[in-house]
Amino acid sequence: MIIDSHTHFTTAPAQLQAYRGQQITNLAKPVRAKLTISDEEVARPMEGQLKRMQDCGIDRLMFSPQAGAMGHHFGSPLVSRYWTEACNDLIARVAKLFPDKISPVCQLPQSPGVGPNEWADELDRCVNALGFVGCNVNPDMAGGREPLTPSMGSEWWYPLWEKLVKLDVPCTVHASASLNPAMHLTNAYYIAHHNSAAVEILKSRVFKDFPKLKIIIPHGGGAIPFQWNRQRGMHVKEGLEPFEEAARRVYWDMAIYDKESMELLIKRVGADRVLFATEMFGAVNAIDPKTGRNFEDLVPIFKSIDWLTEEERHRITEGNAKKVFSRMSASAKV
Amino acid sequence: MIIDSHTHFTTAPAQLQAYRGQQITNLAKPVRAKLTISDEEVARPMEGQLKRMQDCGIDRLMFSPQAGAMGHHFGSPLVSRYWTEACNDLIARVAKLFPDKISPVCQLPQSPGVGPNEWADELDRCVNALGFVGCNVNPDMAGGREPLTPSMGSEWWYPLWEKLVKLDVPCTVHASASLNPAMHLTNAYYIAHHNSAAVEILKSRVFKDFPKLKIIIPHGGGAIPFQWNRQRGMHVKEGLEPFEEAARRVYWDMAIYDKESMELLIKRVGADRVLFATEMFGAVNAIDPKTGRNFEDLVPIFKSIDWLTEEERHRITEGNAKKVFSRMSASAKV
Repeated sequence: MIIDSHTHFTTAPAQLQAYRGQQITNLAKPVRAKLTISDEEVARPMEGQLKRMQDCGIDRLMFSPQAGAMGHHFGSPLVSRYWTEACNDLIARVAKLFPDKISPVCQLPQSPGVGPNEWADELDRCVNALGFVGCNVNPDMAGGREPLTPSMGSEWWYPLWEKLVKLDVPCTVHASASLNPAMHLTNAYYIAHHNSAAVEILKSRVFKDFPKLKIIIPHGGGAIPFQWNRQRGMHVKEGLEPFEEAARRVYWDMAIYDKESMELLIKRVGADRVLFATEMFGAVNAIDPKTGRNFEDLVPIFKSIDWLTEEERHRITEGNAKKVFSRMSASAKV
Repeated sequence: MIIDSHTHFTTAPAQLQAYRGQQITNLAKPVRAKLTISDEEVARPMEGQLKRMQDCGIDRLMFSPQAGAMGHHFGSPLVSRYWTEACNDLIARVAKLFPDKISPVCQLPQSPGVGPNEWADELDRCVNALGFVGCNVNPDMAGGREPLTPSMGSEWWYPLWEKLVKLDVPCTVHASASLNPAMHLTNAYYIAHHNSAAVEILKSRVFKDFPKLKIIIPHGGGAIPFQWNRQRGMHVKEGLEPFEEAARRVYWDMAIYDKESMELLIKRVGADRVLFATEMFGAVNAIDPKTGRNFEDLVPIFKSIDWLTEEERHRITEGNAKKVFSRMSASAKV
């Protein structure tokens, strides 16, 4: 089977965005969402994803709210909490409607300058009460402005790591909105912050302190495999663990859109550390005029890598994901 | 011959940093540097670079002030101006001492929130009076904090582009200090901002308005070649010029430290758009325990790429640099 470890509900029903709109006009007195959305209205906007799955031979999606809409920078911590609950509740409904295809991944009610002790509890609700199997964590909560978020290698994040280990769920590092006019959201800001998070985590003592922590770096690590010896050299210069060993402490999703880049990633970090992923429907949901196929249609590109063993292929499309998203394996009996 | 298009005076005499220290204690009343440094004191800290050149077979350096020390975020525009003049004057002295080996590249007195009309004049002084052949331009003048710098694709930068075209000198996009605790200077912040600048410039109309502008993106574009189809897909989605064509409007320096990455860059943008570069002495001035060679010793790695024609090799090590740094070709008679 093929598990897609990185997908988003970018087609969520309009009622959700209407609630977000209401938040703007009630910023000082945030109100909890009371969304009236029928099962049919939740299911209909999933038709595109389900068709894509069938067309591409993808069996299961790790499915989270639209990343760019998490918008942790916006409003008070309570605004972020109510919005997050609404987004997560909707994902839970999608997963309940399509239990054989969708595993829910949540966002968290992060807020600029507010530490994990104030928002990691949403994980308990999502995992224990709603069956979520993973979460997305924003490394830059103010969206490129101040207050800046501490390094993901710092102890500031430890309450979150404790919670993740305790619940046995992974987190995917995933930035949200960019407020920096010099950084294109999907093609510069995300790449920048996912790359930076990897650099900070891998040069820290996080995995000495939390050996069972499971962190996923999306989009092949931004620039990491391409700048491999730059990372190796920095680790030598700073007297750190060899980078090639550090890099095997996290997982890397393969939502990169070129065969050569997939190959470079797998060669650098090893097939046991790579998760098949497309980001559907994401930054490049468009037809490539050169191939006539959607840029996100990565199954044929991955399959064309001819030097992988069958065991390695299985790991990348299924085995690693089942290990990382261990609650998905337990709950969905996949 | 081999021209190294990206090197820094990271070993500058202590007097320069002592002046920088004085700026802190006289922040409200900035004073111009009056540095007393003998020729011998300017030349001695160049011994390492000159030996490296000899050992590696590099013939000429495009040589600029230490990038991380440009520190445009620090103090008023006048602090930045006086510091910049001191740094550039020192580079001019190095170039004068070693005219057969060093071509000077300047920094500019950029300052947060201050537009190019206020600081581009330093280019006139450097180019016309001191024989500089290029400049470094910081795309994020406040060092990751506010005020944020406008996109390099925006008209805010046009006075600089006008000046560069008029003087026929190229600029290299080069960030300086990172004040963001979540972004390692050389391995995350630089990669992030050089990648972002490339994305912004290539999706803009800058080259429609300034067809003769010469811009160099360092470090192989950060993540651009690795995230190639992500860029292509975004250009398709946004109805822009095909990315593979846009990417050939700028030049890309090859200060990346892996053979596979060099190959990927050259294949993506073409041998006529790549400049040999090492960043010496830069982020990875250290011995690779796997090879026993310095990470920055890129000549053998480049030479081991066996599919390039002699003409392509010549372009990357010499021909493209002479075209881009046209004033170097004219002045140094190389």
